[in-house]
Amino acid sequence: MFLNHTITALSSGMASLVHPIPLLATVEAENSPIVLSGVLLSLVVIYLASKIGAEIALKLDFPPVLGELVAGVIVGVSALHLVVFPEAGLSASNSGIMTVLQSINHLSPAALTSVFESQSEVIAVLAELGVIILLFEIGLESDLKQLKEVGIQATVVACVGVAVPFAAGTAGLMIIFHTAAIPAIFAGAALTATSIGITSKVLSDLGQLNSKEGQIIVGAAVIDDVLGIIVLAVVASLAKTGEIDVVNVIYLIVSATVFLLGSILLGGIFDKTFSAVVGQLKTRGSIIIPAFIFAYFMAFLGNAIHLEAILGAFAAGLVLDESDARNELDELVKPIADLFVPIFFVTVGARADLGVLNPTVPDNRAGLLIAVFLIVVAIFGKIVTGWVVFGQPGINRLAIGVGMIPRGEVGLVFAGIGSASGVLDKPLEVSIIIMVILTTFLAPPFLRIAFGDTVEPPASGEPSSEKIV
Amino acid sequence: MFLNHTITALSSGMASLVHPIPLLATVEAENSPIVLSGVLLSLVVIYLASKIGAEIALKLDFPPVLGELVAGVIVGVSALHLVVFPEAGLSASNSGIMTVLQSINHLSPAALTSVFESQSEVIAVLAELGVIILLFEIGLESDLKQLKEVGIQATVVACVGVAVPFAAGTAGLMIIFHTAAIPAIFAGAALTATSIGITSKVLSDLGQLNSKEGQIIVGAAVIDDVLGIIVLAVVASLAKTGEIDVVNVIYLIVSATVFLLGSILLGGIFDKTFSAVVGQLKTRGSIIIPAFIFAYFMAFLGNAIHLEAILGAFAAGLVLDESDARNELDELVKPIADLFVPIFFVTVGARADLGVLNPTVPDNRAGLLIAVFLIVVAIFGKIVTGWVVFGQPGINRLAIGVGMIPRGEVGLVFAGIGSASGVLDKPLEVSIIIMVILTTFLAPPFLRIAFGDTVEPPASGEPSSEKIV
Repeated sequence: MFLNHTITALSSGMASLVHPIPLLATVEAENSPIVLSGVLLSLVVIYLASKIGAEIALKLDFPPVLGELVAGVIVGVSALHLVVFPEAGLSASNSGIMTVLQSINHLSPAALTSVFESQSEVIAVLAELGVIILLFEIGLESDLKQLKEVGIQATVVACVGVAVPFAAGTAGLMIIFHTAAIPAIFAGAALTATSIGITSKVLSDLGQLNSKEGQIIVGAAVIDDVLGIIVLAVVASLAKTGEIDVVNVIYLIVSATVFLLGSILLGGIFDKTFSAVVGQLKTRGSIIIPAFIFAYFMAFLGNAIHLEAILGAFAAGLVLDESDARNELDELVKPIADLFVPIFFVTVGARADLGVLNPTVPDNRAGLLIAVFLIVVAIFGKIVTGWVVFGQPGINRLAIGVGMIPRGEVGLVFAGIGSASGVLDKPLEVSIIIMVILTTFLAPPFLRIAFGDTVEPPASGEPSSEKIV
Repeated sequence: MFLNHTITALSSGMASLVHPIPLLATVEAENSPIVLSGVLLSLVVIYLASKIGAEIALKLDFPPVLGELVAGVIVGVSALHLVVFPEAGLSASNSGIMTVLQSINHLSPAALTSVFESQSEVIAVLAELGVIILLFEIGLESDLKQLKEVGIQATVVACVGVAVPFAAGTAGLMIIFHTAAIPAIFAGAALTATSIGITSKVLSDLGQLNSKEGQIIVGAAVIDDVLGIIVLAVVASLAKTGEIDVVNVIYLIVSATVFLLGSILLGGIFDKTFSAVVGQLKTRGSIIIPAFIFAYFMAFLGNAIHLEAILGAFAAGLVLDESDARNELDELVKPIADLFVPIFFVTVGARADLGVLNPTVPDNRAGLLIAVFLIVVAIFGKIVTGWVVFGQPGINRLAIGVGMIPRGEVGLVFAGIGSASGVLDKPLEVSIIIMVILTTFLAPPFLRIAFGDTVEPPASGEPSSEKIV
């Protein structure tokens, strides 16, 4: 009834239009308030889930990002079916939010499907903007000077911590599990990440941030960020072209490195221009709009040269980190990141169908073995890094290795991009997410043990009063 | 070539998926990095246009929002064809951004159309979020106490300033131009707005903000905001159902008023709950996420009861304006509004096809006459309000009437929502936009003359050093 009225109103309003309008556009214009309703309701669910998840995680002394991810799993395809995407073979009738919209608006099945697809597309792009803004923020927070000072020890630890899990993971998947080369490489790459945020939070809680071990771990995590993003850009590009030949791989590694280093070098000139331009502007958004023009343009460039948008956003962050407007920019980006980044974390969880690893289904056994394998490689591939530190008698090698274990948000970036690219099959995607969850979850207690800490166990620990990632 | 590789990679990656995947979803997943590229490039163009437009406008001593709108017209369907939408009967080949993407990615025509539609859908929703956040911010900035104190004079001025242009505009369009009832009512409603931001800026520049006239103008503009949003919600809902019967109109007016007043009354209780919840949260985004959960939920509710999302967002802003976290929230919402709102203003300009009023085409004469008619009603319908002020001998009645003329951002909200709903035909839509531009553009010099101001003419005026809307 409502639909008929709308169509009547639309036709009469459109009678005198200059251009003829295709039917599809009419249907879309008519549904556009319903798409908006779907997006608004999805965002309400995503934000509620992220906040509840983060707060519970913090109460239990786990990293908040873990809570956001688990909350995403709960509202997603694995459990409540509130936030689901059509890629998983789900139709609109599987979506809790579409059911609500349907009961309010009485849509036809075709219109419902069209609204579901449009709404999912918008949420997916918002999540992608979320990860772009996350990497922009990480870039802004990474100090290039600190990067130059981390020293040889941290560099060696970082390189080994990238190489060992990558090689062991990729080779193991191909040889033991007969995984195809591209997904195996992608999963191997996901094993390389180290979460600087989670690591430094735990070290600071333990009072070990300024110890020799703490300095090496943080320095290595910073380099690991940079190496990890280059690895991800190369691997994601391989996944797009679907071809692995040595020339292409070398080309990609070189172009990703040149892109990042080139941006940083040119940035030395650009940050002055940026500050000069920003100083001239007198209307609202005088810092934030130029900063986002630069970040989005670099992200576009990263995509356009067939690498990754996040590589561009990260480079943009590194460049602007050197500008005079830096401190003000940091403050302005925070609320924007707060609003966009949870969409990414929650949708990564929501897309992961834990059902594919349900141990009671015999067909899932291979997937479960893959998950166990990835977790073992993730832990031991980083623990060995402690033993490459040289010339430091009496250093706590185990603590260094354990400190590199948590994948945190960086691991999720890999999982999210792998999932969006469609290169990972479901069991592998879910295995990576479980690997990220477990390593992030285990690192804090393990690190306490490795440092021989005598404080109370994590569950009863006092949450820090500072607001953290 | 690139596409073939992608498809091969995707098929191999998807072979072991649990659910069968429809072809459409495959095409979409494969195009998703290109959709992202399109969105990023569109945002870069939109932000560049908005900033350049706003800065030039300010240099010429015009309101920055006027510059953003004109910049939108320049990058949109009227001139550069960079930001265009499929609703206007345009295909992907008409879009400058799609041409760039095409040259980078070598897409098939079908894939290009699909990317164009997805990208336009995302930008359209971002613009809708922009106007929701704009109204949320206006709500946050409107002081309920101030609203109670504006006094009888301002209330009378506001009511007359809503009633006269609405009645004259609607009746004139229906009688003189034989416009159908719904578009005529919509255009009449668009004439009711008064821009509080622009008005108070000009008054403050003239040193008249605290004069008796200034107080009445600002008070009336505040009430006008509330009346205007109720009128818009009612009219947009009429447009959706396509039916005008007295019962329905009364029902809508009552429900919009009850929704707004009810939110404000309940808000007296809710703002305490909100402050208590926010005080308990310890993770990042502890204020902004709960605030946006509330704002988006209210916007969803506004849509769900067949009124307007912006009515809900405005009500949410009014409620949170009373909360303890208000000042901090104001600061946090600013950069978010800076990032979202320009997308709305620029796309309103970009959608307006000024070509439909090209005076050299004889068919456009009716449209031109409509534009002239709307502008005359817009100016005189507000000027008369000065003469309803009573018991104030010696008051500058002309100044009060002229102060109510600029439609500014509020008028654009009407134009944007009318355009998105499809209820306005092109000439009427463009006439409204030109009416908004001209009234906003003329108000500052007119107000100077009405106050008998002797400062230099606008073009050489010193721009205020404060960053303004």
